[in-house]
Amino acid sequence: MPLTQIFSTLRGKRPAPALGRTVGKVRFVGAGPGDPDLLTVKALTALQEADVVIHDGLVPVSIVKLATSAMKFIPVGKKGFGQHTPQDVINARIVENARQGHTVVRLKGGDPTVFARLDEEIEALEAASIDYDIVPGITAASASLAAIGQSLTKRGRNASARILTGHDMKGFADHDWRTLAGSGEVAAIYMGKRAARFIQGRLLMHGAAPDTPVTLVENASRTDQSVLGTTLVNLPDAVEQADLTGPALMLWGLAPRDAASLPLLKQELA
Amino acid sequence: MPLTQIFSTLRGKRPAPALGRTVGKVRFVGAGPGDPDLLTVKALTALQEADVVIHDGLVPVSIVKLATSAMKFIPVGKKGFGQHTPQDVINARIVENARQGHTVVRLKGGDPTVFARLDEEIEALEAASIDYDIVPGITAASASLAAIGQSLTKRGRNASARILTGHDMKGFADHDWRTLAGSGEVAAIYMGKRAARFIQGRLLMHGAAPDTPVTLVENASRTDQSVLGTTLVNLPDAVEQADLTGPALMLWGLAPRDAASLPLLKQELA
Repeated sequence: MPLTQIFSTLRGKRPAPALGRTVGKVRFVGAGPGDPDLLTVKALTALQEADVVIHDGLVPVSIVKLATSAMKFIPVGKKGFGQHTPQDVINARIVENARQGHTVVRLKGGDPTVFARLDEEIEALEAASIDYDIVPGITAASASLAAIGQSLTKRGRNASARILTGHDMKGFADHDWRTLAGSGEVAAIYMGKRAARFIQGRLLMHGAAPDTPVTLVENASRTDQSVLGTTLVNLPDAVEQADLTGPALMLWGLAPRDAASLPLLKQELA
Repeated sequence: MPLTQIFSTLRGKRPAPALGRTVGKVRFVGAGPGDPDLLTVKALTALQEADVVIHDGLVPVSIVKLATSAMKFIPVGKKGFGQHTPQDVINARIVENARQGHTVVRLKGGDPTVFARLDEEIEALEAASIDYDIVPGITAASASLAAIGQSLTKRGRNASARILTGHDMKGFADHDWRTLAGSGEVAAIYMGKRAARFIQGRLLMHGAAPDTPVTLVENASRTDQSVLGTTLVNLPDAVEQADLTGPALMLWGLAPRDAASLPLLKQELA
């Protein structure tokens, strides 16, 4: 048995299709956090070359319409907690369009490798012997950190950070709450808005300081971006009163760098 | 005391400079993992508009030279473990060029908010009352995950993941090793190559399974990218034998998706 292996950089290559049959390919493309200028050059090119675009509901129209040669646009997935397309239906749409010989761009908000259910879709392509590649995108955490002028890690504060989802918090191990509750811990919590009270309860129960800063960045990088700076003790009430309607990333353990000097944007919540 | 505050999205705005004096600005720009096509459109534009580029040693020439209007290029930082520019010298170069009225792009490998010592440089600008903004970049973890066809998180495996640095491992809490050693844990370890034996020792000591997959992606996204798939028990020897000379990201708990079917690129290590 070999000790280890160095693999080719070429991935997802499948056996050639049967003679006379042309099979397309699928590109998983990260749409980034919302600002079209935060697309990578590679993502923009992939969009411009796409025949078919299958896009998440949260990807803004200003990005979807950059696919100027596409003949078909298929919105799938869900918008917040609303209507959603079942995963097996999404998989089937991707496969059927690639089998028709198209170059399919599967456009996902943020980065396809972060909370984007990439695995299920790749497995469907592997089962159907369809080629694919992955074009990374700027994830919401990067854009949110940039918005508040903070680093994910900082010497003397934290040498590591967590990325997690608030969408299915019930399954998150108690052990991790204890770690997160410690001083200087930092986490980027995706889809944490609705779990704010649950998150607060768990962190307080495990000894987190009530005045630990928590920042929510709504619509990161978009023209309607807003930043909500609060603390653990006030978190659920602050989130409720702010009535954030767009996607929001929660940054545990970080305050906006300019909190003291910034003017209030909309309101001072009493 | 207000319960919380919603802050303006405009950041880093400083008092106007004294009459008759023009002060420039600084843009912290993420260069991404190496492929120039993985620059964001915003980063590319920032480079094209830069008067002065102060760039890390690890940023490829093919990206630096996209700053077609720049009159000055200043390489700083360190290349691997080699020669490096002290942080206070870097800070001084940024401030002095901005004070001369220039638009300075501080070009950092990957994403400026991930292991990039952003805070020290921002603090120097704040002390000097110089405006700045941050343009996010694709971090090495995203590009590496894309290269091996895996997600950072996956239902039924892990709902959270860690981002950490191997560069100063001695300071990493024992508590975190215990968490990481658990089944299904995933971490993206930056600068972990030289700490491979230390990392192995800690994880085994805390009960990690010896056959846990570990993947190193060297030069992620570049034409000379290579992928080293191994397991915890073989990690230090595999890293030593593979003789990775470029920057490498270590993915704890993940194997390349196509490991079984991929041809060997360079060698089979015995």
